[in-house]
Amino acid sequence: MKLYGSPTPAPNPRRVRIFLAEKGIDLPETRIDLMKREHKAPEHLARNSLGQVPTLELDDGETISETVAICRYFEEIQPEPSLFGRTAIEKARVDMWVRRVEFQLMVPVGAYWRHFHPRTAALLTQYKDFGESNVDAYAKGQRWLDGELANGPFITGDAFSIADICALSTVDFAAWIGLPIDPECKNLQAWRERVSARPSASA
Amino acid sequence: MKLYGSPTPAPNPRRVRIFLAEKGIDLPETRIDLMKREHKAPEHLARNSLGQVPTLELDDGETISETVAICRYFEEIQPEPSLFGRTAIEKARVDMWVRRVEFQLMVPVGAYWRHFHPRTAALLTQYKDFGESNVDAYAKGQRWLDGELANGPFITGDAFSIADICALSTVDFAAWIGLPIDPECKNLQAWRERVSARPSASA
Repeated sequence: MKLYGSPTPAPNPRRVRIFLAEKGIDLPETRIDLMKREHKAPEHLARNSLGQVPTLELDDGETISETVAICRYFEEIQPEPSLFGRTAIEKARVDMWVRRVEFQLMVPVGAYWRHFHPRTAALLTQYKDFGESNVDAYAKGQRWLDGELANGPFITGDAFSIADICALSTVDFAAWIGLPIDPECKNLQAWRERVSARPSASA
Repeated sequence: MKLYGSPTPAPNPRRVRIFLAEKGIDLPETRIDLMKREHKAPEHLARNSLGQVPTLELDDGETISETVAICRYFEEIQPEPSLFGRTAIEKARVDMWVRRVEFQLMVPVGAYWRHFHPRTAALLTQYKDFGESNVDAYAKGQRWLDGELANGPFITGDAFSIADICALSTVDFAAWIGLPIDPECKNLQAWRERVSARPSASA
């Protein structure tokens, strides 16, 4: 089994690294050099026709891409510690929160990076007005999540899950590109300290 | 159990309706009138703090939102016919394709609707240049999926799955807002005819 990835602060490879650390699975990344555009080279496009990392290659040659799908594969082959929930309602609840985090936080952060940040300006056509509007969208998402975090120590409530991994990798990446957590979001700040104290957060 | 929804051609409520039809589960929508802004009323915000439909309310009062999470709940309580896969690799493969369809097709269609279509212009601030750029992004997504569909009759290959439901509700909604399938995408056209012939497609 090979995990093609990149040791960047970008949320997607890091989500898988944190997930594997929480599971206690030792599978180092096989590095794809994004600066050398190795992810768009024919060799990697044969593994993932969209040229993305991370991509997981199984021993029979089949490849799985999309971060959460890769994590789900590891959850299925090694269910404990559970990070996607065990019962029907737990699984639905985790899936809901993964998607809420992705759509309310990760999407605006990604759009800001893609359409406003100077580091992507050289690579891609940007729509800067739209890009900048995501500062407000991300602020709104933070305030909403801050309110929800009054209900428990972790995103889904009492249990640490992949939803926390998605949120941590997003707020850390956002801070790295110039969008720190709103200091008025006290629950969100406390949650970030809580999950950052786990050994997996260094992945 | 109550399913709050809306009888619109919008992809999210329809994804759940098609999914339930494929499962043979009879659970009519409890209608939320979007034109009357009932989804943003306190009564519905108590069910879903983001004010979205669909939202599923269980008999104990817990609510699940996010379309795919709702479908996953029904998959867990009634596994057959399987629409999310049975084995680890099948589950990962379906999850990958759901996400690929969502990010490569549904996101550009949604951004075009949100930021360019005249019907949303009256309701929300639009970034029209960005909105229009999604015509190309959707065209690119269609060509990519058309190539992938050379590998089998359905999105994941041989088996019909929730990934087909996600893709059908997206291309149908896209056509409804003025973005029909590219006639050069023959595999995609044939796939659409194949899945549209299933009784569930009328949901």
